[in-house]
Amino acid sequence: MKVGVFDSGIGGLSVVKSLLEANLFEEIVYFGDTARVPYGIKDKNTIIRYSIEAVEFFKNFDLDLIITACNTVSAYALCEMREAAHCPVVGVVQAGALAVSNTLTCKDANILVLGTKATIASKAYELELHTLEFMNIQTKATGLFVPLVEEQIYNKNVLDATFDYYFNDLQEPDVVILGCTHFPLLLRYLKSYFKKETLFIHSGDAIVAYLKREFVFSRTYMHPKLKFFASENPDGLKKIAREWLGI
Amino acid sequence: MKVGVFDSGIGGLSVVKSLLEANLFEEIVYFGDTARVPYGIKDKNTIIRYSIEAVEFFKNFDLDLIITACNTVSAYALCEMREAAHCPVVGVVQAGALAVSNTLTCKDANILVLGTKATIASKAYELELHTLEFMNIQTKATGLFVPLVEEQIYNKNVLDATFDYYFNDLQEPDVVILGCTHFPLLLRYLKSYFKKETLFIHSGDAIVAYLKREFVFSRTYMHPKLKFFASENPDGLKKIAREWLGI
Repeated sequence: MKVGVFDSGIGGLSVVKSLLEANLFEEIVYFGDTARVPYGIKDKNTIIRYSIEAVEFFKNFDLDLIITACNTVSAYALCEMREAAHCPVVGVVQAGALAVSNTLTCKDANILVLGTKATIASKAYELELHTLEFMNIQTKATGLFVPLVEEQIYNKNVLDATFDYYFNDLQEPDVVILGCTHFPLLLRYLKSYFKKETLFIHSGDAIVAYLKREFVFSRTYMHPKLKFFASENPDGLKKIAREWLGI
Repeated sequence: MKVGVFDSGIGGLSVVKSLLEANLFEEIVYFGDTARVPYGIKDKNTIIRYSIEAVEFFKNFDLDLIITACNTVSAYALCEMREAAHCPVVGVVQAGALAVSNTLTCKDANILVLGTKATIASKAYELELHTLEFMNIQTKATGLFVPLVEEQIYNKNVLDATFDYYFNDLQEPDVVILGCTHFPLLLRYLKSYFKKETLFIHSGDAIVAYLKREFVFSRTYMHPKLKFFASENPDGLKKIAREWLGI
């Protein structure tokens, strides 16, 4: 099977990492729309237009499946991408919600959804979680997390002040959904901020679990072909891919 | 005289505010490339391409002058915009450097230039300041300031931790150049962070001083025509313009 992975930028590489560890695909084609990142501050119509352009680009590769690694795209443009595509399209929001359901038996658990402004405003996670009968949901648009990661600011004082700013009026959560591909890079700091038992849902792991449930994989591929494309500075993307993925 | 003001987003409205206070123009046409903001993380060729597109757009308005309110554009694309335009093009970097020169007689003053990653990497301010014989220059890419302003996070703990993170290895400056249109919104917090005598250079005021020096304005206009255009969500831009400019 050949898969296309679409993200607004480089963050979706964390999903590629999970796919590589699961050995599910013969070929992985990554497209990062680095010229137009970030999507999380754009309006719905723009996000849909850009996402359909990505589907058109993927038609060059005879793919069996497209994954939208970007939470904002998954929240706003999944239906439109499915209409435009010649193959199934799966999104990290749906996968993330299902991962909560697979992890928790207690429907009363307090779930905190973190995401960009656009992802949170879409209420996409709440919709999916309500369908799965989880009702105790808090959401928070933590827009500053993206530039913190992009600027690689992992300074404890800055992070603690930022966490306090965003979280001081929230109930202590049992589960935190990292609803943006950048957020796993803050995981160790978030882990030390919240109580020890807090569960964290990571889009990459969630998508692998979702794929294994929804599709039949008849064999494993130890050395998939990898192709990386970016709408700006593809060499920069390839360099980061080599570092993050150890390829 | 009719002027076009170009910015990557909404930040250039702070330059429009200074222009309105100075009553220099009969008509002000603003274009914010809100669909493709921010420019400060993009590469040089992309910034140039977008800036030339803005010049082409301005050709619809029979302008006498174009101002690039965006520091990143002024740093990278001023020459190319001048080649493409049918009228003079002036930039905030050149104006900001000249404002330092007009304010300070002492060439040994310690000047701190703040800007986006792209503006700082361009060394455009250093080049202009060196030409004016200022040699004691520190620069710092304070990328997090943009999302702090856009997210309207004016929380003292977050700002202090961020200022410490960026500035703790710097010498105390005599002058701080706010080399991004977003940064004036942090001015009161920066003022209380640095020593009391520190001078701050604001792009809007700098451009007015520059224009008065370089061009002849034969009369004043108390009620200029204002036209606002955006590549995405123009209603949002107009709403912010009304709030910021009190129009």
